[in-house]
Amino acid sequence: MDKAKVRLFVEGRLEAGGCITLNDRQAHYVTTVMRLGCGARLRLFNAAAGEWLGCIEDAGRGRCVMTIEAQCRRACAEPGPTLAFAPVKKDAIDFIVIKATELGAAALLPVWTRFTAVQRLNLERLRANAIEAAEQCGRLTVPTIAEPVPLAALIAGWAPEQALLVFDRDRGGPLKAVITAAAGRALPPPGLLTGPEGGLAPEELDVLEALPFVTAVAMGPRTLRADTAAIAALACWQAFAGDW
Amino acid sequence: MDKAKVRLFVEGRLEAGGCITLNDRQAHYVTTVMRLGCGARLRLFNAAAGEWLGCIEDAGRGRCVMTIEAQCRRACAEPGPTLAFAPVKKDAIDFIVIKATELGAAALLPVWTRFTAVQRLNLERLRANAIEAAEQCGRLTVPTIAEPVPLAALIAGWAPEQALLVFDRDRGGPLKAVITAAAGRALPPPGLLTGPEGGLAPEELDVLEALPFVTAVAMGPRTLRADTAAIAALACWQAFAGDW
Repeated sequence: MDKAKVRLFVEGRLEAGGCITLNDRQAHYVTTVMRLGCGARLRLFNAAAGEWLGCIEDAGRGRCVMTIEAQCRRACAEPGPTLAFAPVKKDAIDFIVIKATELGAAALLPVWTRFTAVQRLNLERLRANAIEAAEQCGRLTVPTIAEPVPLAALIAGWAPEQALLVFDRDRGGPLKAVITAAAGRALPPPGLLTGPEGGLAPEELDVLEALPFVTAVAMGPRTLRADTAAIAALACWQAFAGDW
Repeated sequence: MDKAKVRLFVEGRLEAGGCITLNDRQAHYVTTVMRLGCGARLRLFNAAAGEWLGCIEDAGRGRCVMTIEAQCRRACAEPGPTLAFAPVKKDAIDFIVIKATELGAAALLPVWTRFTAVQRLNLERLRANAIEAAEQCGRLTVPTIAEPVPLAALIAGWAPEQALLVFDRDRGGPLKAVITAAAGRALPPPGLLTGPEGGLAPEELDVLEALPFVTAVAMGPRTLRADTAAIAALACWQAFAGDW
């Protein structure tokens, strides 16, 4: 495999001479989808160890054991915005998780809001989506995905030194002005909060806008779907105040 | 239906007292999905006529005839960037068309590039996606979707006074610098060109970068999927130099 293109997130310890057994999904991908066998090299990574070259030592029938060789990237911090978002229906929420991972979100916080229409979340599926996106996009970290909480709990637990940008079509200043104003300050990356398909309720916006760490932000003249709003907000932040 | 929430793009002439027969998709949506009947009001729009209130005159079994009442929004120009993009697989291309419509693209130009993996396009499906997205997001116009052309033809037909921003992970200046530099000039909205999953080929980038109207742009340290890149580019343009 030229240049060890396959890149996998592994939870175990990575150190030269060590040994890692891939999980079932990864073993299937490596041996069946990519048809790699003994002697092939992959890249293995996690936040604590950075990225390492691994060599397939033993493989077959959904089994893949790797020997760890050399480190190819050191571990480093990957700070990024936090995306708080109201859960939406399946395709759109998968999309939010995948794109937010590519766009460098550090943490994803699902939030129950008044108009949230979905009732439950498959966090395991969302986490698998985040891992696959991290593998593809080249991150060393995988964004954390928290258990969903009601909006009141999100607010109660919010660290006031972290700005929270709340996106709403009808209220707030233009994104450009808000990001430009924030970009010069050396603060932790902000939280970005986007609502469900029906938007945040007026009383939710009232409560949010009264908080000292909240800035309300509008995104143009068109009604964006919930997933579009989340991704557009992240992209604009990263491009103009983040790591782009 | 309070406030005539249903909003449909119609090709016919809209004028007070006129009559419009909805097409099959729309009639099904109105009568079966939304369960609206005679006397219910919808909003009907197109670029030439603006937006009008219509009242259901006759409906049933996939049939819906509307009487046009009063204009609620005048026609107006909706200039926006042109998105030129390499076709990608089905979900991702539907996604590009829908999100680009919400984000205000004026025209979509599918472009065959060296690493484009898909062989054909269902333009009818893409145009239906654009219409539905325009209906939902509040535009008066629907972006045009051109027949796909090879990259050489795109370049040959490009109006040199329109800037073309070409997105590539490894080349070009940061998006922020490029958009900031462009934002002050009173030029037509630019074209944004994004490649297929494998990126634009080095020789394609060589040709593009030699053109006087082309600026190469990078979007951060992570590898974005083709659809993510297209949407992020549009969102950033609109937020910092467009109509947000």
